[in-house]
Amino acid sequence: MRRVANSPVRAYPKPQTLDDVLGFELLEVSTERCRARFAVEERVRQPMGLVHGGAYAALAESMVSITTNTVVAEDGSSAVGQSNHTSFLRPATDGYVNADARARHRGRSSWIWDVDFTDDEGRLCAVSRVTLAVRPTRGG
Amino acid sequence: MRRVANSPVRAYPKPQTLDDVLGFELLEVSTERCRARFAVEERVRQPMGLVHGGAYAALAESMVSITTNTVVAEDGSSAVGQSNHTSFLRPATDGYVNADARARHRGRSSWIWDVDFTDDEGRLCAVSRVTLAVRPTRGG
Amino acid sequence: MRRVANSPVRAYPKPQTLDDVLGFELLEVSTERCRARFAVEERVRQPMGLVHGGAYAALAESMVSITTNTVVAEDGSSAVGQSNHTSFLRPATDGYVNADARARHRGRSSWIWDVDFTDDEGRLCAVSRVTLAVRPTRGG
Amino acid sequence: MRRVANSPVRAYPKPQTLDDVLGFELLEVSTERCRARFAVEERVRQPMGLVHGGAYAALAESMVSITTNTVVAEDGSSAVGQSNHTSFLRPATDGYVNADARARHRGRSSWIWDVDFTDDEGRLCAVSRVTLAVRPTRGG
Repeated sequence: MRRVANSPVRAYPKPQTLDDVLGFELLEVSTERCRARFAVEERVRQPMGLVHGGAYAALAESMVSITTNTVVAEDGSSAVGQSNHTSFLRPATDGYVNADARARHRGRSSWIWDVDFTDDEGRLCAVSRVTLAVRPTRGG
Repeated sequence: MRRVANSPVRAYPKPQTLDDVLGFELLEVSTERCRARFAVEERVRQPMGLVHGGAYAALAESMVSITTNTVVAEDGSSAVGQSNHTSFLRPATDGYVNADARARHRGRSSWIWDVDFTDDEGRLCAVSRVTLAVRPTRGG
Repeated sequence: MRRVANSPVRAYPKPQTLDDVLGFELLEVSTERCRARFAVEERVRQPMGLVHGGAYAALAESMVSITTNTVVAEDGSSAVGQSNHTSFLRPATDGYVNADARARHRGRSSWIWDVDFTDDEGRLCAVSRVTLAVRPTRGG
Repeated sequence: MRRVANSPVRAYPKPQTLDDVLGFELLEVSTERCRARFAVEERVRQPMGLVHGGAYAALAESMVSITTNTVVAEDGSSAVGQSNHTSFLRPATDGYVNADARARHRGRSSWIWDVDFTDDEGRLCAVSRVTLAVRPTRGG
């Protein structure tokens, strides 16, 4: 596992896009792991005050997409999300939601990532399995 | 299929929460169907300009959770999201993303919904399968 | 929707393979739909006497794989299963399990199918969402 | 993690049921882990000679169901499969398919397991995420 250049972390998030609006932070990007988080504020909550299930799914999607693209770009390829399956285990209500993603499969045409979400006490709140399709970049 | 009271639609979204921040709109809530949408603006985009996969997952989660809760509340129960599996079929880049959800299973302890997302030309952009756990409301 | 040649139905199942051992039957194959079934006998049961969850998953996988391959072969492509997500709604204990599959997405590089499983009273017992990767056939 | 009594392993598989017909073997059952396998013979193959996707899904379902039931039975509860999501990463064609399952969530009303399938060279061939619903046993 090799730490990739810092540029994806520094350029993230693009202003005004979903990741920025929801307060996502990218902490570390390696070739087969990445870490990210968001603070539990009103903007990531559903009406009952819990973290919205879509916030977990969205962060999983963002962090593994950025990481995969950073890696496969070196081969002239790009990656797009194909499927995101997130299971919700226990509610989070304050502090940070901390995400740790691990690549389970890095194939020529698809990558699969597992993402674990924990609260600040280290309790597992949600898990995502994300599949990305990898394709040669147009004109690449 | 019976149209439920208008209150969930009118009360939605709660200000400052994720649904409000991302511009989600609830259009219709029935006992086994619901419709919702969001405009494709910067706040639901990922860095490449496409609709963020998490926006589909989040809207699916919101709309079926509200609808299920509206129905099961009559029996003194409540529902929480258990799993959200969203597949991305084609990118959406402008206009509205229109969501149509259909209850596939309405059991005593779990509900399953299928959500179809189409663009303004009616092309299928994403599909979600959402499972909710239904439980007696505490003290209910 | 066009009915495809009868050959996949006639050649199915290949003797001694899983489909044959579990008693799967292919009933109809069209370009975007297919139907299949199995009798509820001991060989598809788990220890408590219910239909084994794996039997639903396996039939879903078989029927959509055969159908997709039959269609994409005309373009010199082939399809392999990439992901199978099956949800179990109610137990089946006798008669037939009847499967009806509908293609939701028929893309250049992936197909997505939804499969509904009903018992002989038409009650929904399980649902599968299957994703297949489509690739040019080697040497094709 | 505590090794549970040997009885589930000894009683498995029940003759003539799916697990027996497909040659599944249970190797070890603990409170939050279990291992199992099957030999790659014709009965677990699809028509092209590869291991059938349904064989992975079925073994995942069996092994985590047995293990969960063994543990929750001590509390007068039982578990039934609710959802099985299996992703296929690389084909297996001979030797054994070896399955290693780890409980990710052991809640009062649901358990979630991750299952890794490797071939005899240790290469990851498939991964399953299985959700079980846990309920008080009738009359329990």
